[in-house]
Amino acid sequence: MTSSALYTDHYELTMVEAAMQAGTASRRSIFELFPRRLPTGRRYGVVAGVGRAMEALEHFRFRDEELAFLREEQIVSAEVLDWLADYRFTGSIWGYPEGELYFPGSPLMVVEGGFAEACVLETVMLSIYNYDSAVASAGSRMTLMAGDRPCIEMGARRMHEEAAVAAARAAYIAGFASTSNLEAGRRHGIPTAGTAAHSFTLLHETEREAFEAQLRTQGKGTTLLVDTYSISDAVRTAVELAGPELGAVRIDSGDLAITAREVREQLDALGATKTRILVTSDLDEWQIGALAAAPVDGYGVGTNLVIGSGHPTCGFVYKLVARALTDGPDAELLPVAKTSANKSTRGGRKYAVRRLDERGIAEAEVVGVGSRPESDHNDRPLLVELVTDGKVLAGEDLEAARRRHWDSLAELPRAARKMSQGDPVIPTLYESDYE
Amino acid sequence: MTSSALYTDHYELTMVEAAMQAGTASRRSIFELFPRRLPTGRRYGVVAGVGRAMEALEHFRFRDEELAFLREEQIVSAEVLDWLADYRFTGSIWGYPEGELYFPGSPLMVVEGGFAEACVLETVMLSIYNYDSAVASAGSRMTLMAGDRPCIEMGARRMHEEAAVAAARAAYIAGFASTSNLEAGRRHGIPTAGTAAHSFTLLHETEREAFEAQLRTQGKGTTLLVDTYSISDAVRTAVELAGPELGAVRIDSGDLAITAREVREQLDALGATKTRILVTSDLDEWQIGALAAAPVDGYGVGTNLVIGSGHPTCGFVYKLVARALTDGPDAELLPVAKTSANKSTRGGRKYAVRRLDERGIAEAEVVGVGSRPESDHNDRPLLVELVTDGKVLAGEDLEAARRRHWDSLAELPRAARKMSQGDPVIPTLYESDYE
Repeated sequence: MTSSALYTDHYELTMVEAAMQAGTASRRSIFELFPRRLPTGRRYGVVAGVGRAMEALEHFRFRDEELAFLREEQIVSAEVLDWLADYRFTGSIWGYPEGELYFPGSPLMVVEGGFAEACVLETVMLSIYNYDSAVASAGSRMTLMAGDRPCIEMGARRMHEEAAVAAARAAYIAGFASTSNLEAGRRHGIPTAGTAAHSFTLLHETEREAFEAQLRTQGKGTTLLVDTYSISDAVRTAVELAGPELGAVRIDSGDLAITAREVREQLDALGATKTRILVTSDLDEWQIGALAAAPVDGYGVGTNLVIGSGHPTCGFVYKLVARALTDGPDAELLPVAKTSANKSTRGGRKYAVRRLDERGIAEAEVVGVGSRPESDHNDRPLLVELVTDGKVLAGEDLEAARRRHWDSLAELPRAARKMSQGDPVIPTLYESDYE
Repeated sequence: MTSSALYTDHYELTMVEAAMQAGTASRRSIFELFPRRLPTGRRYGVVAGVGRAMEALEHFRFRDEELAFLREEQIVSAEVLDWLADYRFTGSIWGYPEGELYFPGSPLMVVEGGFAEACVLETVMLSIYNYDSAVASAGSRMTLMAGDRPCIEMGARRMHEEAAVAAARAAYIAGFASTSNLEAGRRHGIPTAGTAAHSFTLLHETEREAFEAQLRTQGKGTTLLVDTYSISDAVRTAVELAGPELGAVRIDSGDLAITAREVREQLDALGATKTRILVTSDLDEWQIGALAAAPVDGYGVGTNLVIGSGHPTCGFVYKLVARALTDGPDAELLPVAKTSANKSTRGGRKYAVRRLDERGIAEAEVVGVGSRPESDHNDRPLLVELVTDGKVLAGEDLEAARRRHWDSLAELPRAARKMSQGDPVIPTLYESDYE
């Protein structure tokens, strides 16, 4: 990443300008990134993007080319340009760690700093959290439905090329086994996978020639795509050429449940009892669930993953919830909130815990407003320190995020596993100092 | 952009590997990028991403860091690594120009080259076209409904940070007047706009103080956000401070039609008859249409634009449609197609024209298969040469794309303007040499 500084809405800089002139730019402030609600019908959400957000924070630097643009377009004054040129976030950030689950009102990120330095982070933080968490939240439902069968992410072609890399990363956090996306492999170390498309079969005179060419370079453990012409012909040819060591066949069209059964019977009859069956073709969590009883060994998921299975954004917002009454680092914080119709906010600094019952099953998301929720309950704290006095504390750890996702999911009541539309599986309770 | 080479699915490189060993890698081939259908209910689509795709093609270079990854992960052999290190696309590409409209089956991009060199472009081309065209297609319906009133793109916060820049670009092609996205301003020269968020009001002791601070730096022509607390109080304060020269007020919540009427009456009563009213808050094409009779002067559109108003991807595919029978540049081309259930393709090189009636109104999208449609009709050719023998012919021209969008839209039958669900507004007709 070069600079993330202009992933920023124009109005953030005009606010900095006005606040500087008004003398309020460095007033101590708390911004909060949170969901007002879950996407309709969803039982839980999955936090992703934290590692990317921290990287963006470290690259939030206004270099000559960014400053030149702002100067030429006269977006801010010389005074603000000087301030931007020296910009380093000096505040602190607490947040839900990557892979954690969330519910309506979960304070996913709590940013404390001067008004201006925290204000300018709004857009880039929202961009990252809103997309990455949308994909992870959809992906989690898919891996839940897939059970022990691996899911392969292959949606790059259906989404913006850089968003696709983020999607592969988010899917991996949500339990996907691998991705087709080479840049995601290079950048994030996610295992990559892939063998051949229909075009490879069509390039050759016969399907047999195409299979021979693929087997020659990739070995018998490869996956042969068997639905370019007749599936039963292709399966017969595949086993004839590779024998029972053939790794897998892929089916990309038709009624997958029926076809998988037919192909399984044919493979078994031909002695290829260990050859696996992979299915692709517009899968989503419901389709995967519907294939649970079919003899399928793995799912390739594309479009519906990268578009968040109907919810391509989480609708997170980033709001000022408290600010100092006066200047200076020790000034008392005043909770602030807007009262706009159907978009009001809840003022005050937030803390959050997941309340568990005696068996360790989640009962509620408890949000303390103004102070930590105090109780003799079995409460698991949710906020960790991500940034202290401008220093990013933790690097990206996708394996830890993957484990956290499974662990947090295991904690939820069983209703979380329902794919039908419903309410959040646990309620959000507020414990406020101000009410 | 540094390198676009790894915005590529793993299987494309394994296909290159197998084709090289089989001796078929350089066989002359035609790939086609096309939509099987429009999103459900849509009447037309808008092509966007062409300029970005050409830039990605020029940056499709495997440098040391990309090659090192492929080598370490043993994704391809040393022979293929050498081939990739020298990769330069040497073929030719024809396509619909940016801003043009499309219909089911429109051959949006026709790529001619060796199999391997054309095959590896699949993912990056699809990523760009699928997202950018999804946003432009949604944006076009919004500007259509907005009529003479300007639309401002402000969706960055709800979509991946780089996708958001592409969205601002696509929206501009579709007639949006400006964007909040500073990086889109810097990179693509799109006008940027923005004034203040609720946090700026909340930062100050009173709304009056916040307005005073904003007016001091931005002048009376600015836009004041009036729904942090009571709208009528805010409007009164705003006009008190700025007088009738106040540029605009923004309303971001509540029932926008009713509120806009109340605010208009109040502004007029206060003598601020020239002060404009901007509305934001989850607008889409239907909401904009519903506000046509309200005294609104501009629309800020965010979420629903960047997620394609329910259709965040176009579902374009990239398929081999013809290949040489033998090696060599002059070998005869054979149409090829897969017959997969519900996903079959139509083999053969495509040409396309928009057939117009005697008044210049579009009647049909006519696709010639194997040769140009020939007729004594009033046919407007749709394919332009984008790349010749590896050389990209045209740079990005967003103003031309904007004009093309309006001109092509003006050519459509009036039913194109219906926001209700319906069929494509013109049929796609095939004229085939092979049938």
